[in-house]
Amino acid sequence: MAESCVFCKIVEGKLPSYKVYEDGNYLAFLDRFPRTLGHVQVIPKKHYRWVYDVPEFGEYFNAVKKIVDGVKMALNPRLVHIITIGDEVPHAHVWVVPRYDNDGHGSLIDSHKTIEMSDEEMADIAGRIANEISS
Amino acid sequence: MAESCVFCKIVEGKLPSYKVYEDGNYLAFLDRFPRTLGHVQVIPKKHYRWVYDVPEFGEYFNAVKKIVDGVKMALNPRLVHIITIGDEVPHAHVWVVPRYDNDGHGSLIDSHKTIEMSDEEMADIAGRIANEISS
Repeated sequence: MAESCVFCKIVEGKLPSYKVYEDGNYLAFLDRFPRTLGHVQVIPKKHYRWVYDVPEFGEYFNAVKKIVDGVKMALNPRLVHIITIGDEVPHAHVWVVPRYDNDGHGSLIDSHKTIEMSDEEMADIAGRIANEISS
Repeated sequence: MAESCVFCKIVEGKLPSYKVYEDGNYLAFLDRFPRTLGHVQVIPKKHYRWVYDVPEFGEYFNAVKKIVDGVKMALNPRLVHIITIGDEVPHAHVWVVPRYDNDGHGSLIDSHKTIEMSDEEMADIAGRIANEISS
């Protein structure tokens, strides 16, 4: 755990998040600045700098796949991007970004283009995705 | 195998590619329109429409990880993106895109911005990445 890491604080419950999935090693929650409706961050609970520093790489992506499936069932997107960037927060994270017709992005999303969502909408969307994963 | 699929034709050797990795189930080769130096496509040899249609999802990403490691060793990028888009070719593919200082892209790449590389440069880069993976 890195003292100042925002994602470590979310793992520890010291910062709030709209969770959609959690198991012993991985946590998934809505991005605070969603690029589309249902944009999720999937992280290892243990602190690693980069996604490719996670030793159980295939296991990590099997967790990502659960989120992709949940997002597809909950929101019926046209397709789902899986994206690693890494500059924004220095804790390994995979973006799961559902895409819709006329969502304002190109073939790949513009990472600076966010949508406005109220707390109520965030809670609703997180709940809908979580329900599809646990069911 | 889909009759008209470009990536299936690459798998079958009916279209050329600059290969960097191959095993029984996966194939990796340089993108024909590289967004940065060392931009690789990692695909399942069997035809699936989307990355998340591949049943052995974790295994697929373990193959992706080998390419990421090879690209890191061969080209010493600042970071490496792992990205799925899917609209361009209807055969599951994961982009491995190394990033460099001043490479002309933002925090996430602009998928329309490509670089010019000669056949000789493509062959050289593919060989350098392949050597790091096999060694």
